[in-house]
Amino acid sequence: MSNPPSERTRVKRYSQNAAYAPETVHAILDAMPLCHVGYVFNGSPFVTPTLQWRDGEQIFWHGSTASRMLEAAESQEVCVTVSLYDGLVMGRSAFNYGINYRSVMVFGRPVKLTDPAEKEAQLRHFVNKTIAGQWERLRPVTEQELGLATVLSMPITEASAKLRSGQPDDDQDADFPVWAGVIPVRFEVGTPEPNPKNLPGVELPPEALDFKLG
Amino acid sequence: MSNPPSERTRVKRYSQNAAYAPETVHAILDAMPLCHVGYVFNGSPFVTPTLQWRDGEQIFWHGSTASRMLEAAESQEVCVTVSLYDGLVMGRSAFNYGINYRSVMVFGRPVKLTDPAEKEAQLRHFVNKTIAGQWERLRPVTEQELGLATVLSMPITEASAKLRSGQPDDDQDADFPVWAGVIPVRFEVGTPEPNPKNLPGVELPPEALDFKLG
Repeated sequence: MSNPPSERTRVKRYSQNAAYAPETVHAILDAMPLCHVGYVFNGSPFVTPTLQWRDGEQIFWHGSTASRMLEAAESQEVCVTVSLYDGLVMGRSAFNYGINYRSVMVFGRPVKLTDPAEKEAQLRHFVNKTIAGQWERLRPVTEQELGLATVLSMPITEASAKLRSGQPDDDQDADFPVWAGVIPVRFEVGTPEPNPKNLPGVELPPEALDFKLG
Repeated sequence: MSNPPSERTRVKRYSQNAAYAPETVHAILDAMPLCHVGYVFNGSPFVTPTLQWRDGEQIFWHGSTASRMLEAAESQEVCVTVSLYDGLVMGRSAFNYGINYRSVMVFGRPVKLTDPAEKEAQLRHFVNKTIAGQWERLRPVTEQELGLATVLSMPITEASAKLRSGQPDDDQDADFPVWAGVIPVRFEVGTPEPNPKNLPGVELPPEALDFKLG
């Protein structure tokens, strides 16, 4: 926690269900590559969805509109949030109606990877985290493509997780005659849809069958 | 589009795959209640996950940490983003590796609902949007609970959607011998898990079987 601004400490004080254990934070980041990058541009907040991945104690993400904006102001603060919807919590009152979820917020000032070798190494890590060995099967990336790709990174030093799981907490209403419980939700990976122009004989790599989210 | 700040117009100019048709924006908001509210607090960006719902041309969301912060500064700008991961796009190179997705960004200055009747009407709308008629089955909300609930709202006037669907766009690499295609992902709703303290005879309402995400 290097120089945590007071307002962020305040977030933590506010938070219910908060957790700061690195393994909890890491597990949530690893479960869902889709992330939401929040940043300030000309005084206004923006939240841009993009793809993140983790390598040890660092978080990386693909640049997009956000990166173009961040380039305009070096070392801007960001908040990267990853969230998963795990289930509908059906309490016995609207007050206890909600969802089960896992989420992580990571705060910091990202840097843009400039070393082509480091950028390539991280893109390889990202691709192979999704499907083992896939980077080595792909048409090699060109120097120009590498130049066009934007990868941002920051250490996972200031982060917190929030989670909720299990049944509604409304025993005090247990005598009210309504069904209470949880409707769980998870990601279902469907049947791969081959590209119509795939060459004869090319096969889906068996490792792709291990692809999962959540 | 009332007074769109120039930086937001710039976002739109940057965007690829952008769409502004209300029916597209509405369909994405309706598909996924989990949203990410971005706001600025003491100059720093925060992205807080919470639950949103739509009523006509207005977006509403549950207050949380974000609302406590927003209360500190009335009429702050926010960006509410909703995103769905629809599939892994396996291009033939890392450059064409990505995801299919749907996302919406809504910009504005939210107001907090203060009229208890309006707040109750919106919470009812939220619950019944999830499971038809569920509000009427629940233990009625108390005046105190209604006071504790924070509901924020803003018009969906400044919004844009970004989407990607279908196969990778890399026909130029079609002679490279690697499997290309899409691995679709969707939400699977599991078997409802009843609360152990449910009264004998209470049943899951049949409408709950219509619950879905995505």
